[in-house]
Amino acid sequence: MGKYRIAVLPGDGIGKEVTKGAVEILKAVGTRFDHRFEFVYGFIGGEAIDREGTPLPDETLQMCHESDAVLLGAVGGPKWDHNPPHLRPERGLLKIRKEMNLFANLRPVKFYDSLVDSSPLKAEVVKDVDLLIVRELTGGLYFGKPSERRVESGEEAVVDTLYYKREEMKRIITTAFELAGKRKKKVTSVDKANVLESSRMWREIAEEVAKDFPDVTLEHMLVDNAAMQLIRNPKQFDVLVTENMFGDILSDEASVLTGSLGMLPSASLSTSGPSLYEPIHGSAPDIAGQNKANPIAMILSSAMMLRLSFGLHEEADAIEKAVQQVLAAGYRTADVAKNSKRVVSTTQMVEEIKERI
Amino acid sequence: MGKYRIAVLPGDGIGKEVTKGAVEILKAVGTRFDHRFEFVYGFIGGEAIDREGTPLPDETLQMCHESDAVLLGAVGGPKWDHNPPHLRPERGLLKIRKEMNLFANLRPVKFYDSLVDSSPLKAEVVKDVDLLIVRELTGGLYFGKPSERRVESGEEAVVDTLYYKREEMKRIITTAFELAGKRKKKVTSVDKANVLESSRMWREIAEEVAKDFPDVTLEHMLVDNAAMQLIRNPKQFDVLVTENMFGDILSDEASVLTGSLGMLPSASLSTSGPSLYEPIHGSAPDIAGQNKANPIAMILSSAMMLRLSFGLHEEADAIEKAVQQVLAAGYRTADVAKNSKRVVSTTQMVEEIKERI
Ligand SMILES: CC(C)[C@H](C(=O)O)[C@@H](O)C(=O)O
Ligand SMILES: CC(C)[C@H](C(=O)O)[C@@H](O)C(=O)O
Repeated sequence: MGKYRIAVLPGDGIGKEVTKGAVEILKAVGTRFDHRFEFVYGFIGGEAIDREGTPLPDETLQMCHESDAVLLGAVGGPKWDHNPPHLRPERGLLKIRKEMNLFANLRPVKFYDSLVDSSPLKAEVVKDVDLLIVRELTGGLYFGKPSERRVESGEEAVVDTLYYKREEMKRIITTAFELAGKRKKKVTSVDKANVLESSRMWREIAEEVAKDFPDVTLEHMLVDNAAMQLIRNPKQFDVLVTENMFGDILSDEASVLTGSLGMLPSASLSTSGPSLYEPIHGSAPDIAGQNKANPIAMILSSAMMLRLSFGLHEEADAIEKAVQQVLAAGYRTADVAKNSKRVVSTTQMVEEIKERI
Repeated sequence: MGKYRIAVLPGDGIGKEVTKGAVEILKAVGTRFDHRFEFVYGFIGGEAIDREGTPLPDETLQMCHESDAVLLGAVGGPKWDHNPPHLRPERGLLKIRKEMNLFANLRPVKFYDSLVDSSPLKAEVVKDVDLLIVRELTGGLYFGKPSERRVESGEEAVVDTLYYKREEMKRIITTAFELAGKRKKKVTSVDKANVLESSRMWREIAEEVAKDFPDVTLEHMLVDNAAMQLIRNPKQFDVLVTENMFGDILSDEASVLTGSLGMLPSASLSTSGPSLYEPIHGSAPDIAGQNKANPIAMILSSAMMLRLSFGLHEEADAIEKAVQQVLAAGYRTADVAKNSKRVVSTTQMVEEIKERI
């Protein structure tokens, strides 16, 4: 019997509903497999701003550092959209990534046959898609300094900085190779080496790292081409690895393949401390509080936590299999409900998955 | 009868084949509508490196400055892939953009019903797509300084710089509004304002410019969301406007909607001098010299030239209509040949279009 302390940060909007669902599923897993999961709760994002005047209170961060893993719902909402930059919910997200050294964001994109109607792509294009985007999460344009307005000979100008240390590039690329070694053994390194100096360094490092993984194939792809290939022929990919901003764009783009953001989990691995797991969707203010949100992305994120942070593979499999069965049985939340006759609420979906654990 | 001097830069690979086709079509237009088009030729890209030791010789640039418009094929090829950065074909492209002040890259994405089989997207998603991406082309990460390696306390690091002047943002956003005013009157301004200071300034300027165009609607969209929406629901868009790197990624992505890069033209407008017209595809070394390339993107680029640089609307219409007829009649080059019975070569395709002028 294992004992695990999990920090739960529901955040805003549907973040609250989907984390509630994931916690229920984890409790069911605990019962079936005889583990003790202890859940501790903290504020982040808009609610943290309202209560504590900051999007990431120190207590929350402290609590996360002292846990075995973190589950995060989603942050943000129209209420805080006009706040000054330092009082916006996303700042909490960026800060927790940086403070916990969550350098590697893993976004698996797996196509479920049963959702073929929901994808804007033709069945033959998306069938059997099973790729993993590995995005650098604590560097690049997101954190480089200077990031400021300037006045130059009376004219206003602005600058942001794409900055990386060699080590930061090396560790994320190495992570991608390690993961590819356990999958289809192919890494596509995405950059813009025909324009950016940072990309030329990235490419060199990728070549170096590749030498340590003789059984993994490395290919380079320019980011504009990658944006095309992800839609034209997504089956060609196994693991894609790229810097922070390119990864942000490409992973959201790739989410379209599955038909709904509501299906996609992610893991953010730390260099040292606990890792964080969150759905890639946002707080969806338009449907918040209506018991309509798709809890699957959050539930699959908790399966990733079991596998990657706790090494509980059988338990993770049980969750993933239950999700697959529920989808195959035709249950759908509204976001993927096209042509479906079994449209269910968030809580009903959680119930159906729980029954199959 | 009009008289126009056109600088033709075929470049490398299929660039040569497709510019040849476009020149033939322009000659046919000249005959039918009684215009005199004078063509002058110059080197750019790999061939210029081989002949003159630089990807953009001064004579080429001079010739372009002295013309009424420039037609560019494509540059690049494996032969030059391992050259040092300053001796790479793309440098010629970046330099001509900067030297001629080609600040506004217009990439229309229009879906042809007859190509529905070639698109990876479902027919209902792409039918009636008619959008225009307006990409800033002479600023941002492409040209910002510093762009260099550094050694900081013994560790190697690298920096690229996203830099814009207020005026540079204002003129591209204004261009987008002007164009939207002649179309469906909607501008989607794409940025990453939740992270980048440059995007926050971009958003402010977009709000300001919008005030001068009361009949055009402005919406803001984050770049990651835009990458999704372009595939999920491309019909929602009229004109998208964005900075250089985001525009590079999104416009290549959007090209997938039509099924082939070989269909998409572009115009690069100058602040003052002549404008430049080029297909958005590259030099396609794998099929170069085989008379297989799709000449339509280049031919439609020359139609854009007639319309935007010379104000010859009827003539541009004639080209566009001829292309539509040829496609409707079932003629296809290999890139879009899926399920087609009338697969033709580059020269045959040019012939078919010419006959219909
Ligand atoms: C909310 C935002 C700052 C964030 C990002 O850009 O990283 C989000 O888009 C994501 O991908 O997690
Ligand atoms: C070749 C390359 C430098 C260029 C760019 O990035 O602008 C190309 O991708 C384009 O879009 O015209």
